[in-house]
Amino acid sequence: MLHQLVVLGSGGALPDLKRNTSSYLLLLEKEYILFDCGEAAQHNLIKYGYNKNKINHICITHLHGDHVYGLIGLLSSMSMSGRQYPLIIYGPIGIESFILHQFSFTEFVSPFLINFVELSNNEKCVIFDCKSYSISAFPLKHRIPTFGYLYQSKQMDLNIKKEAIEKYTLTVEDILCIKKGESIFRNSKLIPNEELVFVKSQPKSFAFCSDTIFDEEIVPIISNVDLLFHEATFLEIDISHAIKKMHSTANQAGEIAKKGNVKMLLIGHISARYDDFDAVLFEATIRFKNTILATDGLIVDF
Amino acid sequence: MLHQLVVLGSGGALPDLKRNTSSYLLLLEKEYILFDCGEAAQHNLIKYGYNKNKINHICITHLHGDHVYGLIGLLSSMSMSGRQYPLIIYGPIGIESFILHQFSFTEFVSPFLINFVELSNNEKCVIFDCKSYSISAFPLKHRIPTFGYLYQSKQMDLNIKKEAIEKYTLTVEDILCIKKGESIFRNSKLIPNEELVFVKSQPKSFAFCSDTIFDEEIVPIISNVDLLFHEATFLEIDISHAIKKMHSTANQAGEIAKKGNVKMLLIGHISARYDDFDAVLFEATIRFKNTILATDGLIVDF
Repeated sequence: MLHQLVVLGSGGALPDLKRNTSSYLLLLEKEYILFDCGEAAQHNLIKYGYNKNKINHICITHLHGDHVYGLIGLLSSMSMSGRQYPLIIYGPIGIESFILHQFSFTEFVSPFLINFVELSNNEKCVIFDCKSYSISAFPLKHRIPTFGYLYQSKQMDLNIKKEAIEKYTLTVEDILCIKKGESIFRNSKLIPNEELVFVKSQPKSFAFCSDTIFDEEIVPIISNVDLLFHEATFLEIDISHAIKKMHSTANQAGEIAKKGNVKMLLIGHISARYDDFDAVLFEATIRFKNTILATDGLIVDF
Repeated sequence: MLHQLVVLGSGGALPDLKRNTSSYLLLLEKEYILFDCGEAAQHNLIKYGYNKNKINHICITHLHGDHVYGLIGLLSSMSMSGRQYPLIIYGPIGIESFILHQFSFTEFVSPFLINFVELSNNEKCVIFDCKSYSISAFPLKHRIPTFGYLYQSKQMDLNIKKEAIEKYTLTVEDILCIKKGESIFRNSKLIPNEELVFVKSQPKSFAFCSDTIFDEEIVPIISNVDLLFHEATFLEIDISHAIKKMHSTANQAGEIAKKGNVKMLLIGHISARYDDFDAVLFEATIRFKNTILATDGLIVDF
């Protein structure tokens, strides 16, 4: 089952030639989930070749401009390009007014349903749940109300055992059912699913944490995820700025990943004050080995 | 004196790989004036190498998203990059609320003065006037309140006559004063400015008309300008769409330019429905010969 994270915007507060403001696209088998939507996120969707209308969920962490200024333009373009399917937008209280107030000036009437889900939970809370996956939101500590998100798939990736195909003369229809976890009957006898398949891969999980001060309270929530995105705005040498601005250092991002025993850490939102991003990556890697640096256009499989 | 128009966004309602939404930067000797600010206008300022903090006036035609969604991000980035000088933003009634409502969520406090000038004039009206130039606004006819803008420089570009330098042994200070139009004294005798200079070029003018239905009422306002930008969303074959959506055809843009006896016509805002922009340019050129097509990054001297 496809699980890829595409970096649409890896940068901090100010866009530059190489790094757009925050936006990350999770590609699933049949749809996309967007995490944050900085200005020109839709431009990078076009640039990297992803269909904006495959996005069914948009998870906004907080209402600082570099995480949300691209949302209104994306919604307008979805509308003008024939979208009909509903869209769910999650974010802090105010996100609906933030968008609808703008639309009230711009003659915009959405041809598709936009369902705003405003968050105010103090603990981790499931905000979407379907057969294939769930999305949870949990509070982060930043200067304004901010939420992290946790995606968890439910289905294991099952492959059919070769010997079962011959033994039970499985049809294409049988195989499709079995891959979904079902059992079959042969000569009035139940052949349990476990006998027909092997587990190709376990359910996957991804946590998105931006922006936040170093906060160990999120460790139980993000523990053991396959991929953790954690902001790393500053170097440890500038920790006083990190504390003042309620951001994290690269070292702290590594520390959270280590404590959470995650499989992979992706860091981004690096301050424009640093020329040498290798130094930021190096600092996080010392703390947590399997760390990669977000760059615009990067695709991370997990 | 420098007069260049830089196309930051030549496109229509939907951005694509080659054409961003509407934004045009007028470069003057010491400052810039921005006309419209579609999403990612600030990205193209960076891409083409122009300092956003040299913009002192932003003229928004109307509050459709493709003309204004980039304004909030540009203001935020100006703020974060140390701007201190005041900025004036002109636009239809609602522009101030449109921006300030967003800022109210995003913790934004501008370190520089933003002066919103909301327009409601039914006729051409001077909205800014200084020693070097004036800016006027005039109503256009579109689906929501919309304004065109007229820039007019005041100063002729004067060059010193070579023979005058020798005859009156002019110093650098003399030359600077003379180029500003001043006269000098030699042996208690006044030497009039006209005797010292020749006119290199006359005052310049630029009119910006987007979006608008074909409207001959603007002809007296834009007449004889050095450069007219006029939208040309449709081809004449689709004139019924143009009328319904209150846009213009390329032929109509040419017609306005011809009736106004302008020196040069720049067309843009072409609908994404057309693959062949040469056909659009061709149609306008048949009506008005000196027509050019706006493309992102294009620089037009006038």
